[in-house]
Amino acid sequence: MKDRTIPYKTYLEFNEIPKQWYNLRADMKNKPAPLLNPGTHQPMKAEELAPVFCEDLIKQELDNDTPYFDIPEEIYKFYQMFRPSPLVRAYFLEEKLGTPAKIYYKFEGNNTSGSHKLNSAVAQAYYAKKQGLKGVTTETGAGQWGTALSMACSFFGLDCKVYMVKVSYEQKPFRREVMRTYGASVVPSPSNDTNIGRKINAEHPGTTGSLGCAISEAVEVATSTPGYRYVLGSVLNQVLLHQSIIGLETKAALDKLGEKADIIIGCAGGGSNLGGLIAPFMGEKLRGEADYKIIAVEPASCPSLTRGVYAYDFCDTGMVCPLAKMYTLGSDFIPAPNHAGGLRYHGMSSILSQLYDDGLMEAVSAKQTDVFEAAELFARVEGILPAPESSHAIKATIDEALKCKETGEEKTIVFGLTGTGYFDMVAYEKFHDGKMDDYIPTDEELAVYRARLPKVD
Amino acid sequence: MKDRTIPYKTYLEFNEIPKQWYNLRADMKNKPAPLLNPGTHQPMKAEELAPVFCEDLIKQELDNDTPYFDIPEEIYKFYQMFRPSPLVRAYFLEEKLGTPAKIYYKFEGNNTSGSHKLNSAVAQAYYAKKQGLKGVTTETGAGQWGTALSMACSFFGLDCKVYMVKVSYEQKPFRREVMRTYGASVVPSPSNDTNIGRKINAEHPGTTGSLGCAISEAVEVATSTPGYRYVLGSVLNQVLLHQSIIGLETKAALDKLGEKADIIIGCAGGGSNLGGLIAPFMGEKLRGEADYKIIAVEPASCPSLTRGVYAYDFCDTGMVCPLAKMYTLGSDFIPAPNHAGGLRYHGMSSILSQLYDDGLMEAVSAKQTDVFEAAELFARVEGILPAPESSHAIKATIDEALKCKETGEEKTIVFGLTGTGYFDMVAYEKFHDGKMDDYIPTDEELAVYRARLPKVD
Repeated sequence: MKDRTIPYKTYLEFNEIPKQWYNLRADMKNKPAPLLNPGTHQPMKAEELAPVFCEDLIKQELDNDTPYFDIPEEIYKFYQMFRPSPLVRAYFLEEKLGTPAKIYYKFEGNNTSGSHKLNSAVAQAYYAKKQGLKGVTTETGAGQWGTALSMACSFFGLDCKVYMVKVSYEQKPFRREVMRTYGASVVPSPSNDTNIGRKINAEHPGTTGSLGCAISEAVEVATSTPGYRYVLGSVLNQVLLHQSIIGLETKAALDKLGEKADIIIGCAGGGSNLGGLIAPFMGEKLRGEADYKIIAVEPASCPSLTRGVYAYDFCDTGMVCPLAKMYTLGSDFIPAPNHAGGLRYHGMSSILSQLYDDGLMEAVSAKQTDVFEAAELFARVEGILPAPESSHAIKATIDEALKCKETGEEKTIVFGLTGTGYFDMVAYEKFHDGKMDDYIPTDEELAVYRARLPKVD
Repeated sequence: MKDRTIPYKTYLEFNEIPKQWYNLRADMKNKPAPLLNPGTHQPMKAEELAPVFCEDLIKQELDNDTPYFDIPEEIYKFYQMFRPSPLVRAYFLEEKLGTPAKIYYKFEGNNTSGSHKLNSAVAQAYYAKKQGLKGVTTETGAGQWGTALSMACSFFGLDCKVYMVKVSYEQKPFRREVMRTYGASVVPSPSNDTNIGRKINAEHPGTTGSLGCAISEAVEVATSTPGYRYVLGSVLNQVLLHQSIIGLETKAALDKLGEKADIIIGCAGGGSNLGGLIAPFMGEKLRGEADYKIIAVEPASCPSLTRGVYAYDFCDTGMVCPLAKMYTLGSDFIPAPNHAGGLRYHGMSSILSQLYDDGLMEAVSAKQTDVFEAAELFARVEGILPAPESSHAIKATIDEALKCKETGEEKTIVFGLTGTGYFDMVAYEKFHDGKMDDYIPTDEELAVYRARLPKVD
């Protein structure tokens, strides 16, 4: 057995929770491409974004230069409720795999939203409150973001309206009920409340919805209701800024332990967790201070980085949002119905897309049943039932650790365990009963969506 | 706002996790009454218990004198996975209530079993493994104990068979699925696998089961299957011994903060959490070193302490277990079907029963809807969605804090937040929809069950 002088769990002290977010863009030589006005194809200005987003968040969204943003006291106070999150040394997993690698994971699931999403939800709710708004609208897929936002809005006394992808609304009644506990109203999407919802329902009767459609509905309601704005749990620059707290805490804990990461692994849907986890490490890499192998892991059923194209695309199905340059599968791509959990967005954060295009990080995809196999192994040895999303990172971590076993290398691997799977037991049940399949889109299918990308010079 | 020099969360250091359990019985002047042989009414000897329980656990069960037991290294290793648990200062709740009281809670829900039950599950699985057994059987009601035992058995490579009260089995498929993730087999009780199950099914067609019946089934299977023993998640002396780690950590954290509790509050079903939480504090009280007001909170629908009698009774419906002297409602008492969550056992730990009878602790009961109201308030301000069981302690804590508000007293209240409510959303939904009622058994009903108590001289 390995020497166990390093604790199984490392918590920073109460007053060591970072007091600033880190803006990775400040250190990027090639900045992420700007959002474009879908009509004029010109970069969106703050005033054009104002009907959709909160003022302070727009400033954060558009700021590619300021390296650090102070975390306001009210947000910091809320962070103390559920942060610092532990950095865990995965001794039991290492032992099970028989690997010489050292494995660490940053566990963000110890809060009622069940994931890292709360880090940005509280920030966005705070700025909405500060602006004197009545409420916010949003979409949710697997439900983690909606739950996080409900908690944050309840704390700040804001109204919260969540458009939940219909298939999740029906399959996850308990998620919905948690949101109700926090006073949110939850509407299955597509709904008949909005023009875009009615249009999609008419064109695709019986549709079970998609994230892109739920976004369109939430944006429509936010822009047409006085005192409301729209908030989003991933993809945007502001979200990655808030999520940098994950990476900052991880780095601080590693420094305390005298450890240096070699490989950093995170699951990637829209990029909120990965972008946050890697932020300070990528910063060092960009400044030439250190080198890290950084791996994004995405589902083989929704492979935006590994099989998408780097192009301007719509962020939503209804095409009401600005255009973003990103690795994308096309804005009307929807993963096959058998796809479990989140990570179902058609595109990827502009920041991460640029970094990937610049060769600063790698990407791999994982098949669903392999992911659940890794999840179950992890649950049994490490005692935490992981979310399907997080389990993509577990799968890639196991692969890297087994490579180390072959080569005998004692690498230090750090991965993001974004959340718990308590509300994903339907997916686990499918897996146990052998009813889960691994459908992967064909090249022909992907070509159809790709052909519909908007033409931007 | 109050001064916030004390951190919101206090974690002991990795190496400060207690290395011994504390046996409260060693300091009791009036020892808990011994288990009796149901045939002879003589105290059960170790050899009589051996077909049912593991050897080392029997020693712990019968030992009223040894004050401390070393925690074996393998168990300690497992404890490091999910312990230390945080002691949280409930600043947000205090602020919401406007109370001068200081409120702390020991949060035991940050593990996949979702509760404190894992503290004893890992100990019991370890001793079973040490004895060379193949597996263990048990019962589970709300599912927390079954989940905890599944996790522990998976870790030690033991087979685990869980008899789950039928109504819970049907209403909580996700709990069942978590147990399956850990490789346990879960059987709805009453089943047709056992003599007692078949008998109960024949006598009460369509019954939805009870904890007492599930215990009888699990014991029957354990005693009739070579290489198996029965394990229990509450009530027993050994369980309270293992759970003392909750109180020991709580006390160590308070000492570190320079705080002294005035009031200690815990929910009480069989007594596993309450007995563990209060152990070192009650020890001081018994030794005359300090005084504490200690409050057990039970559901008004299953009020063993507040409306039961102190007498010898069967521990199970099938009357196959030894007799225990306890506050009891009668071994065939079952709470009304509307009763949500756990805390549905007809009796109470012999240790706690004796302490209560000696006037060393108090007991109150709480109505279900009041409990859920407290739960929702707590979830919104403290950010943790509590289990219905734990919410009984929240309700009583709020009551005590509001008394302090009236009197202006700055008391320090510590309560046990035993677990999370992620698998109890059906109950929350009932509460939100106004479909929850507060049925309380009448004196006449209780008299019927009381009349059936066994006659013991």
